[in-house]
Amino acid sequence: MLNLTEIISVPSRLFIGGTVPENYYHDTYVKNIKPVYAVALPKTQEEIIKLVDFAIEKDLHILARGAGTGVAGAQVPLEGNELIIDVHLMNRIVELDEETLTLTVEPGTLVGEIHHYVESKGYFYPPDPASKHSTIGGNVATNAGGLRAVKYGTTRDYIREMTVVLPSSETMTLGSKNIKSSSGYDMKDLFIGSEGTLGITTEIKLKLIPLPKASVSLLLAFDTVQQATDATLAILTSGADPSGVELFERQALHYAEQNLGYPLKSQVGQAYLLMTLDGNNQTELVGRVELIEQIAQETALESHVLTKEEALKNWALRDNILLGLTVFTEFELLDEVVPINKFAELIESTKQMQEKHGLNVLNFGHAGDGNVHTLLMKDDLSEEEWTRKRAALLKDLYQKVADLGGLPSAEHGIGIVKKEYMESMTDEVNLKYMRALKKVFDPDNRLNPGKIF
Amino acid sequence: MLNLTEIISVPSRLFIGGTVPENYYHDTYVKNIKPVYAVALPKTQEEIIKLVDFAIEKDLHILARGAGTGVAGAQVPLEGNELIIDVHLMNRIVELDEETLTLTVEPGTLVGEIHHYVESKGYFYPPDPASKHSTIGGNVATNAGGLRAVKYGTTRDYIREMTVVLPSSETMTLGSKNIKSSSGYDMKDLFIGSEGTLGITTEIKLKLIPLPKASVSLLLAFDTVQQATDATLAILTSGADPSGVELFERQALHYAEQNLGYPLKSQVGQAYLLMTLDGNNQTELVGRVELIEQIAQETALESHVLTKEEALKNWALRDNILLGLTVFTEFELLDEVVPINKFAELIESTKQMQEKHGLNVLNFGHAGDGNVHTLLMKDDLSEEEWTRKRAALLKDLYQKVADLGGLPSAEHGIGIVKKEYMESMTDEVNLKYMRALKKVFDPDNRLNPGKIF
Repeated sequence: MLNLTEIISVPSRLFIGGTVPENYYHDTYVKNIKPVYAVALPKTQEEIIKLVDFAIEKDLHILARGAGTGVAGAQVPLEGNELIIDVHLMNRIVELDEETLTLTVEPGTLVGEIHHYVESKGYFYPPDPASKHSTIGGNVATNAGGLRAVKYGTTRDYIREMTVVLPSSETMTLGSKNIKSSSGYDMKDLFIGSEGTLGITTEIKLKLIPLPKASVSLLLAFDTVQQATDATLAILTSGADPSGVELFERQALHYAEQNLGYPLKSQVGQAYLLMTLDGNNQTELVGRVELIEQIAQETALESHVLTKEEALKNWALRDNILLGLTVFTEFELLDEVVPINKFAELIESTKQMQEKHGLNVLNFGHAGDGNVHTLLMKDDLSEEEWTRKRAALLKDLYQKVADLGGLPSAEHGIGIVKKEYMESMTDEVNLKYMRALKKVFDPDNRLNPGKIF
Repeated sequence: MLNLTEIISVPSRLFIGGTVPENYYHDTYVKNIKPVYAVALPKTQEEIIKLVDFAIEKDLHILARGAGTGVAGAQVPLEGNELIIDVHLMNRIVELDEETLTLTVEPGTLVGEIHHYVESKGYFYPPDPASKHSTIGGNVATNAGGLRAVKYGTTRDYIREMTVVLPSSETMTLGSKNIKSSSGYDMKDLFIGSEGTLGITTEIKLKLIPLPKASVSLLLAFDTVQQATDATLAILTSGADPSGVELFERQALHYAEQNLGYPLKSQVGQAYLLMTLDGNNQTELVGRVELIEQIAQETALESHVLTKEEALKNWALRDNILLGLTVFTEFELLDEVVPINKFAELIESTKQMQEKHGLNVLNFGHAGDGNVHTLLMKDDLSEEEWTRKRAALLKDLYQKVADLGGLPSAEHGIGIVKKEYMESMTDEVNLKYMRALKKVFDPDNRLNPGKIF
């Protein structure tokens, strides 16, 4: 008979029943108050295996968790009686292998710490989710994207190898340090983005690339979102190879300007593109900047190549959109994605929904990869109005996303908040086989049940 | 009751029993002579669905096939009584969507034709397997790699969406035109590289990128393979960003020189690196070429920046290694992969195995991604000696690959010829779950049975 206090013998790493701290009942936006069985903070894979064995013996559900910075409810206990495995103390950088350009880390390592560490050694880990305080394990669980996906791809593209503990308490290593493989089924990509429903990640080998030695940022201002996205398409096919192409509406930035207390470099127009190019040296960038300036000449109201200081300040405004908004109103943050040529149409349609439903809507997002962050704002609405109008607008919005060939989540995951939309937007055959795959690894539905589908 | 001649009513697209042409019994190297039930050449997904229904009704095994250029036996009928579905007539380029940079093709489209078509429009499909006569469906089935994987990745990285007919005759579309997704399990990557054992691909949407406008090739000569791979590691971390880094031994090239009738640009040393850099313009390339020349200065005997004409001739020699060899001897071509820093050690060990087993061994390969093409040469050995010595050497070789953390196949697939090595080199837990995944989609083991594991 297993005993939790024997598996985790350090009292500060174990909370049972009523002693479980309040923060384990919510993520950034989603809250649940059903009691959990216990929270354990393992420091080794061996402890995780024992915890899973314990959960099997007691027939408990298991919920793995990192920094709790999720936004879709994937880490929130739903059913009551969960054993929460919080891996945030497994946060060691295990090995930098400079010959194969791989970094081995434990799942609780913060992505900001990974950036800092590898960049100090002359390397680059490109995935760049807005939350630097998220753990790499969480980034793997959601296939986190962020600001540099247009050139460099998402978390998925940088996972060489990962080790997981399965709901059976077996361990399995997926992928390897080898760059290519045609040796059997790719199970690694099945686990990436599975939101903790298939296994608990215990170690990850990341692919690194050489750190770009030069970069430059540009800001373009346009009259309309449509012009900004048309320019985005032209830039993407030009060979200018931007590492980030962020689009935001004037109104969305307004709150960040108020919050930070300084203006965006451009004050004309209604829609902006903020871009970064990176490369080996400044000379290499000159020709690529020219390509963008040529495109901008046709429709942009203004086009600025930013100085280093301006770049910092303007990117800080972009990064402050959400925080700036928090000061003024409650809101819901979405992360829908559409094919890049449908970006403007989607944003345009949210304006019509705003009128129809009487709910203010703002948009910003990663124009280079079609990922819109639509914000629904509570403003002065009563709770009842907010709940009702929001539900009605979301229904319309996800229908529009589906009509445009899009998906409910680009980078935050489905969790619980997008489940019903995921189910309505996904083909029945696909859902059937996803459920069957879940059953292969978790026949007792023990691991993070009730999430995704 | 279904009838084959009703499903495929055009006689030239159907071969039954004894009328099946001989080429359906082999791929490039592997042959089997068990009789097959029939070969059907569908032209639409609807016909494929009906053919699968027919196979279910008659309890036939199904084997999907493209151009037959495989080298691992994955397309060879094993059991007898198979229904072969040859998709090579489904070879239409369906749509070039310049706004989302995607190309929709049917599975029988030749990869060389895709290159030609998209490059004429100013776009680039980077995966570049040596066989331009292979079909894109086959490339997906093996996750084909080729010469440009070091910078651009493999086929997997360029599949936005694919539609498959499952062994149940259901159809399923995997992936989408969306660049990012965190919307449920990634089943697309499970099907890529599954060697026709999970589904029959009927349509593929490829990701394109802008065509690089400039390129330059370099040839470096070294005394030893170790020096060449050390230089490769230095080049990969330098930021020079080569799109291909090919390594070959003098001896392997010797046959190509004899066959083509002209020499490699460098005639000193025992190991060579042939590289291409590409970019937006020649100016951008200058600094990157300098990075490589600096690295070469330390250990290379010679370093040549090739003229356009020299580049063509020297790459032709590289491409001619296999064909050149065919003139002189029978051989077996391998495609093992190791972490890039183990490349030299693997090649070195094959030299010891050559001595130990009395079997000549040559090596060439993709040094930038750790993928060695080891060649076992029959030369004057009798059939009996060849079979015996080859089996003994392969056992040692794959053991060494496993010891170095490598995999049996980088880009050709497991098929039947590497099955036993795959099984001995793969963890039992991984094999168990791969088999379970196969069962989810193909509970009756109807689709390409007996392949991979």
